[in-house]
Amino acid sequence: MKNTFGQHLSVTLFGESHGTAIGAVLDGLCPGLPIDEKNILRMLQLRQPGGAISTARREKDVYEIVSGAVNGVATGTPLTILIRNQDTKSGDYAAMQTLMRPGHADYPAQCKYHGYQDTRGGGHFSGRITAPLVAAGAICHSALAKKGIAIGTHISRCACVQDRAFGDIPGDIAALSNSLFPVLDAAAGEKMREAILAAKAEGDSVGGILETAVIGLPAGVGEPWFDTFESLLAHILFSVPAVKGVEFGDGFALADRKGSQANDPLRYEDGKVVAQSNHGGGIGGGITSGMPVIFRCAIKPTPSIAQKQQTVDVLQKENADLEIKGRHDPAIVHRARIVIDAVTAIAVYDMLAGRFGTDYFAKEA
Amino acid sequence: MKNTFGQHLSVTLFGESHGTAIGAVLDGLCPGLPIDEKNILRMLQLRQPGGAISTARREKDVYEIVSGAVNGVATGTPLTILIRNQDTKSGDYAAMQTLMRPGHADYPAQCKYHGYQDTRGGGHFSGRITAPLVAAGAICHSALAKKGIAIGTHISRCACVQDRAFGDIPGDIAALSNSLFPVLDAAAGEKMREAILAAKAEGDSVGGILETAVIGLPAGVGEPWFDTFESLLAHILFSVPAVKGVEFGDGFALADRKGSQANDPLRYEDGKVVAQSNHGGGIGGGITSGMPVIFRCAIKPTPSIAQKQQTVDVLQKENADLEIKGRHDPAIVHRARIVIDAVTAIAVYDMLAGRFGTDYFAKEA
Amino acid sequence: MKNTFGQHLSVTLFGESHGTAIGAVLDGLCPGLPIDEKNILRMLQLRQPGGAISTARREKDVYEIVSGAVNGVATGTPLTILIRNQDTKSGDYAAMQTLMRPGHADYPAQCKYHGYQDTRGGGHFSGRITAPLVAAGAICHSALAKKGIAIGTHISRCACVQDRAFGDIPGDIAALSNSLFPVLDAAAGEKMREAILAAKAEGDSVGGILETAVIGLPAGVGEPWFDTFESLLAHILFSVPAVKGVEFGDGFALADRKGSQANDPLRYEDGKVVAQSNHGGGIGGGITSGMPVIFRCAIKPTPSIAQKQQTVDVLQKENADLEIKGRHDPAIVHRARIVIDAVTAIAVYDMLAGRFGTDYFAKEA
Amino acid sequence: MKNTFGQHLSVTLFGESHGTAIGAVLDGLCPGLPIDEKNILRMLQLRQPGGAISTARREKDVYEIVSGAVNGVATGTPLTILIRNQDTKSGDYAAMQTLMRPGHADYPAQCKYHGYQDTRGGGHFSGRITAPLVAAGAICHSALAKKGIAIGTHISRCACVQDRAFGDIPGDIAALSNSLFPVLDAAAGEKMREAILAAKAEGDSVGGILETAVIGLPAGVGEPWFDTFESLLAHILFSVPAVKGVEFGDGFALADRKGSQANDPLRYEDGKVVAQSNHGGGIGGGITSGMPVIFRCAIKPTPSIAQKQQTVDVLQKENADLEIKGRHDPAIVHRARIVIDAVTAIAVYDMLAGRFGTDYFAKEA
Repeated sequence: MKNTFGQHLSVTLFGESHGTAIGAVLDGLCPGLPIDEKNILRMLQLRQPGGAISTARREKDVYEIVSGAVNGVATGTPLTILIRNQDTKSGDYAAMQTLMRPGHADYPAQCKYHGYQDTRGGGHFSGRITAPLVAAGAICHSALAKKGIAIGTHISRCACVQDRAFGDIPGDIAALSNSLFPVLDAAAGEKMREAILAAKAEGDSVGGILETAVIGLPAGVGEPWFDTFESLLAHILFSVPAVKGVEFGDGFALADRKGSQANDPLRYEDGKVVAQSNHGGGIGGGITSGMPVIFRCAIKPTPSIAQKQQTVDVLQKENADLEIKGRHDPAIVHRARIVIDAVTAIAVYDMLAGRFGTDYFAKEA
Repeated sequence: MKNTFGQHLSVTLFGESHGTAIGAVLDGLCPGLPIDEKNILRMLQLRQPGGAISTARREKDVYEIVSGAVNGVATGTPLTILIRNQDTKSGDYAAMQTLMRPGHADYPAQCKYHGYQDTRGGGHFSGRITAPLVAAGAICHSALAKKGIAIGTHISRCACVQDRAFGDIPGDIAALSNSLFPVLDAAAGEKMREAILAAKAEGDSVGGILETAVIGLPAGVGEPWFDTFESLLAHILFSVPAVKGVEFGDGFALADRKGSQANDPLRYEDGKVVAQSNHGGGIGGGITSGMPVIFRCAIKPTPSIAQKQQTVDVLQKENADLEIKGRHDPAIVHRARIVIDAVTAIAVYDMLAGRFGTDYFAKEA
Repeated sequence: MKNTFGQHLSVTLFGESHGTAIGAVLDGLCPGLPIDEKNILRMLQLRQPGGAISTARREKDVYEIVSGAVNGVATGTPLTILIRNQDTKSGDYAAMQTLMRPGHADYPAQCKYHGYQDTRGGGHFSGRITAPLVAAGAICHSALAKKGIAIGTHISRCACVQDRAFGDIPGDIAALSNSLFPVLDAAAGEKMREAILAAKAEGDSVGGILETAVIGLPAGVGEPWFDTFESLLAHILFSVPAVKGVEFGDGFALADRKGSQANDPLRYEDGKVVAQSNHGGGIGGGITSGMPVIFRCAIKPTPSIAQKQQTVDVLQKENADLEIKGRHDPAIVHRARIVIDAVTAIAVYDMLAGRFGTDYFAKEA
Repeated sequence: MKNTFGQHLSVTLFGESHGTAIGAVLDGLCPGLPIDEKNILRMLQLRQPGGAISTARREKDVYEIVSGAVNGVATGTPLTILIRNQDTKSGDYAAMQTLMRPGHADYPAQCKYHGYQDTRGGGHFSGRITAPLVAAGAICHSALAKKGIAIGTHISRCACVQDRAFGDIPGDIAALSNSLFPVLDAAAGEKMREAILAAKAEGDSVGGILETAVIGLPAGVGEPWFDTFESLLAHILFSVPAVKGVEFGDGFALADRKGSQANDPLRYEDGKVVAQSNHGGGIGGGITSGMPVIFRCAIKPTPSIAQKQQTVDVLQKENADLEIKGRHDPAIVHRARIVIDAVTAIAVYDMLAGRFGTDYFAKEA
């Protein structure tokens, strides 16, 4: 379905960075679901650039809900989020339309769309398209909260600096919720920021790892063989620009473990089955176990860097050097974090709606 | 769609480990596509257990194609692969039906299916269901080969032993194609086997990492935002039992890189655009660039181990100890490899059929 | 999805008339759903030819459920129905493989599959493929019955003879349930049979109209704009061979009505909203109203007739005359009826599962 | 997928009659496809009310393409059509929000959305939502024209007055293309208009039948068993408000025919296979034969009539009488015609893109 994700709740994304408008259509929401605008604003704000470690471009991201809600409540028909583009300086990009920026979608898109794609500011591939995606995810995020399901993401690693792991997950998620640079260990965060600024000074950029926890999920969600919880979540996570790896539970570290170190023993505690460890990240056989779902995404360094790079000019069909000017992020990892929260909320809402029906979110947990 | 993957070419899986039959339905094949039974047999054989490092269970995996092919050629209507179960010793498993095996799908499945699932030998979650999946993938694999697209996977890491990386990819893929224990460095392979046998002697198991290369793909395949090449491939890869992580190109290693170390410079070579490095793994913006696609899957250690484990009895609703008897694999990584090849072939065929139409595979490249 | 229908409960069909086997995979069934084999046998029997008004071909339709059920209960994983072909006399058809039978799929299939299709007995297009479809529908039919939803179809018209309309719908449905020639007015049925035999004597065939009622459906089922109740039902009804028209409520007769004659007035009766007429056939705006759903399907005359027909030989690329020998039905309308019941049950199950979740059918109404 | 249609080219509809905006997202267009704004305007104009036989509401239907097109050419990324609502007099409707209008979606929607739906002017169920649907269809319609495929619809019957059947189809389609009241026989059209005005004078409305021809289609389009050409087309046709029946070729009339009168004999003409009649409406076995595709839709009378009607008040939970004021159409059949053309274009584009790939429309026929 190309730009549509979700079988029960679906989100369709549209728009280009420097086009008229960008937006998202959310279809399948529970009728009567409150649209928590505060949460939408909170999440959009966390996505926005800010301070020295982000691009100087400032979009106000003024969104409108042009359909699907009446008096702050979802009708159950398609809810459309529209954001008009305003702060577009296409001039900055005009010169590079035929110069393929390394690390960007430019050259693959050129091959796919035969040059008809909108190249201004990355066009449809721009990270800017995540603004309506985050707004859509925020609506799902609030719906999940009503059911006792919380999602939180921190910068597990950035510029070779490591944050601590999740400990008291509910407390950690709460602490992260309004942080513009979400780490669990403030000192590690300080070192990350320094490293980002150092890279920026060199005209370079850095990458990182985001770690996410989802708590409150019922056991038994996910479908064998192909729509496992991991499959659907990875599907949407890999749609997020810059994500180049996804791992659940101990992930790649499991490769070096023995079975006796990787299996999670089970025990009854107060009549409930509780795993005594969580190497599997809350998922077994592709299905949730009721333990916290834990996963990590590898975020590559921002490809737009100030240093001179080798590339090709597809119009002149010759080699060229490229110096990217304009406004760019020396790191994207702190901003990508809320996109991960948003798409996770969308995928989880979709799976729960499939399992329990459209009206599942009508009642509080 | 639960047990169906693919929008243009779709595969539907069915069956339980100790049920009557398991199978797959492939829908959307190019009419006239030759069914290369040799390749099906080759791939099924590579999936089969063998030697001391595998389970002692021996299924002959005698498959029948019961629809969709006439005289060894696909008709274009659904092709059904059927494998009757024969060597089933349910007795071995009977005792553990209410004892949830740690690391298996048992407990999540119990929550999802309320106890109605077939628990014998893992039922629908058994790795055995990969047999028809591999057969289905083999048909796609042969179709891709006709178009000049080759897929190869090696054990990049196992039991903390590292294989060398891909070098001459076409040569490496050829060398791997019939190997029951696919490594690029024979000495590394020998150490892996020793480590597996050592783990087996302790009643334990080991995990590993599989690295895959796909060459010959056209540039421009994949869809932005939700059906990226990475999204669709990760979707089906995470359906493969034991896969807990997927990364493309340099993947998680990119988290520690700078942009200048992560971007792939472009240059014209003989009139063709060629990336001067491949950190992105042949994919940019979620779309193929024409470079080799490289990805890795983390394979967790086999969960069935001989050591005593803590678990719960969901019938008695009490804690219990579990000692798994029966036939099990001390490592699954070498057998999982051909499943990765198979599902990759399915996903790639699906994407190419969507991009170029049903009859794309009628002509040789 | 070609040979797959349904987003929540999906059915995938495979097989060819004279191939090895035909079958269906039902995915998404409620775990614990009883598999009522009596109802499967009843519905398969009603599909089978019988007596002078049907083909002389006698398939025993011995079906096996090879996955997805344990001890007569659905596991919730894909349930596969397999029917091996036995009574195949390919010789009868061999001669006509390059002669396109008028009124059949032969020529369109030849264009679509470029001659690779299985032409024996109509191959994948044969009405025989409805056997597993009916078996799959029978499982859904029983599930609906548990929720108080009943489906019944009668021959509203055949060979220009008209049956009476539905009156006491529950009683009518009950009366029809085991009838091999389902009419509400026995005298009309007798005239229809005579007309069929008269057509047979001329080497000809007749068509008819099937009228279906679905009662017990909750109001509020169906999705606006594209997945309306009418859209999804028509989608699967038009998959049934020989269906050339579908109308809901008064259907085409509404074209000649005025609004005041077509609208259904509403009134409270015992606290429940009840329409005072049912011109809309239980559906408004594409969504169920809680009134009985009524629709009709036009069934074209069986295309296989004994009379000489003009056609083409696609091998010789020349005109030819065709005299179809072999075993054929002078009317299909009475056999098609149970196929209509079956596909209706599938579509309704799918919509209810989407609306109310997978486990909706676990509890009785 | 609720408000999304199409697997290869998909259209997602959103909006409510008196909300902020309505629109459509078209995903999967061929990159480089010219956006023929003249054709969009032409088709939107034919959808607009006009003259005494239509509602007095005048929306200018000023649409914007806010994404997916650059310089009048499709980029290949989602193309979004946005129409802001302007001429909304919600006051007219306010009073009837709890009075369910007979023949409308009001009561089914109330059951589905539990009262959260936007009731103003029919909300999401309003015929007004067909404006962006027509604009989306117009883009597909132009693309098909480039491939030599033409679509035309006439009022076959209205208020018991019959138009003549299609004769010289290409000529007929050309003649219909700009007609606001599309009939093939002008005298019949005059009688229809008179009958409409007579109904209007009585505060009533009339229905009709629309007949559509599609020419230039290649043979071999459509998929057994579930995505037949008829199934997919009927799916989207039944999404159009007021459509209560769909028939292909001779449709319901085939019920009274014999096989010898229903089969279409085949003959070679100039090396091409040509059917000697077209009772099947250009489709056999659910697949196109290369003959003109012919189908008819039953359009029920407009449900909004001035006469007093019996209904219920769902707030007061009591019976009530309803007198609909406001602006309404005494007939919708002439306006529905272009919606039928539009959705036909969408469905045909989708099927062709699936069969021949995304770039099929890049080259002229």
